[in-house]
Amino acid sequence: MNAADGMVSFQEQITARIREIESNLCVGLDPSPDAVPAFLHSRPDPQLAWNQLIIDVTHDLACCYKPNLAFYLARGEEGLRTLRETIHYANGHQVPVILDAKFGDIGYTAQYYAQAAFEMLNAGAVTLNPYLGEETLVPFRSYRDRTSFVLCLTSNMSRIDFQTRSVLRGELPEAPLFETVAQKVVEWNTEQNLGLVAGATAPEELERIREIAGPSIPILCPGVGVQGGDLEEALWAGYTGEGSLIINVSRAIGRASEGPDLGELARQEAAMFVNQYRTFLAQYREAR
Amino acid sequence: MNAADGMVSFQEQITARIREIESNLCVGLDPSPDAVPAFLHSRPDPQLAWNQLIIDVTHDLACCYKPNLAFYLARGEEGLRTLRETIHYANGHQVPVILDAKFGDIGYTAQYYAQAAFEMLNAGAVTLNPYLGEETLVPFRSYRDRTSFVLCLTSNMSRIDFQTRSVLRGELPEAPLFETVAQKVVEWNTEQNLGLVAGATAPEELERIREIAGPSIPILCPGVGVQGGDLEEALWAGYTGEGSLIINVSRAIGRASEGPDLGELARQEAAMFVNQYRTFLAQYREAR
Repeated sequence: MNAADGMVSFQEQITARIREIESNLCVGLDPSPDAVPAFLHSRPDPQLAWNQLIIDVTHDLACCYKPNLAFYLARGEEGLRTLRETIHYANGHQVPVILDAKFGDIGYTAQYYAQAAFEMLNAGAVTLNPYLGEETLVPFRSYRDRTSFVLCLTSNMSRIDFQTRSVLRGELPEAPLFETVAQKVVEWNTEQNLGLVAGATAPEELERIREIAGPSIPILCPGVGVQGGDLEEALWAGYTGEGSLIINVSRAIGRASEGPDLGELARQEAAMFVNQYRTFLAQYREAR
Repeated sequence: MNAADGMVSFQEQITARIREIESNLCVGLDPSPDAVPAFLHSRPDPQLAWNQLIIDVTHDLACCYKPNLAFYLARGEEGLRTLRETIHYANGHQVPVILDAKFGDIGYTAQYYAQAAFEMLNAGAVTLNPYLGEETLVPFRSYRDRTSFVLCLTSNMSRIDFQTRSVLRGELPEAPLFETVAQKVVEWNTEQNLGLVAGATAPEELERIREIAGPSIPILCPGVGVQGGDLEEALWAGYTGEGSLIINVSRAIGRASEGPDLGELARQEAAMFVNQYRTFLAQYREAR
């Protein structure tokens, strides 16, 4: 059931898993090297120990994990090994992994990034930046059993610098840049393995993105928790069935405590988000 | 004279160097792991040996080097070590380095990428992707002696998917997205350490970017050589003095041959681009 062995695609695996465990919670694994809890400092690789603790207490609640490359790359070779081992550890618990790297390059370069994500690190999915156009995703798309989530409308404040700007579209009415990105991703989805990133911090725009994307393109949705996005609103805006909307929470879980009760509190936080999803699910099924 | 020691900024260092060696040639170090020349296969680290050979034969002709992260990351921990050692080797020859990573993230994540680029790898400059807005560059900008080149108009074909789209700007006339990026970068350049990336494959647009950016913002200009951009046209479009326009050439130099004459031919190629710059310089000075 591991996407990495090429038998079952990431999208099939995560959809089955979301159905089975009744959770669409993606747990972000962003272990700031400068903020490892003191009680883990004595471990041989404190950053890895932090991730393993979070995986140990959430693996039955998480539909996937999402480590962000930056937190590992900053530590150089050792951090990269930690990232590989983290992905291996998650896969060992049958939980697929989205590598959050926001790669955005072209040609050979994009090809080597795809190799880094899908072969060297063995991630099931990756995040990509659309600024350089279709060439960025071509080599990623050719890994047919993996998924590439293309940034559309991000959850941060300065998304308004460019993403929400109105773009002219010939005879069609003007539309924000992020809608143009969503449309292009639909067009480029020839292998049925592209997804979108759309933040929970803008639920109306998320709804619009879902309209453009159609019901089957998976949306990875950050911004719930510390960033202030509302889980329920995001679900009503983007959910169309298992595997359609993956809600990412990072800090609220991974940094639930700085003390030895981190495991317990991280699990409580994760369970709270899962329960919100289950409550939504009951209402959604009733409403249909 | 190394930007890394915080005494002289990247921009000061590269401007002085361009004046001194009469070359604005940036040599790309993109050693595809799958394409290392056979005569280097017996070396302990063939990828590093390839880079060292190119640096050995071009260091008096290169104003800087530009390794692209992808080619190293694909090899995992070993590749990352090769990248660190490559940057160290270039710095040892007093040649500054631009890490081409096209990072585009926010908050803590962007901060750890900045740490990876400027501390772990000790690069003098980096490339950044603007899609997530100003938050991407905030932590990079705070390294005052380094330079961050923000992607504006890239040299690849699919730049037209988004970068050249017309964007509405309130009461101002509409303008392509890349011009909006250039304007924002001017606004965000509070520490005088931002630059732009604008491809040689679109010289008219490069001229427009130079107009918007004003004379002093450095422009990193890829696309000359294999990608078909014309060096002389690019220079007339974007040059305003030493340090203003850095011309990148990668494959035409690094892959000048697959045989043991690589060093000789790579140097010839590099010298050809430098001579074109010197010819331009004479004409430019005469024309003023």
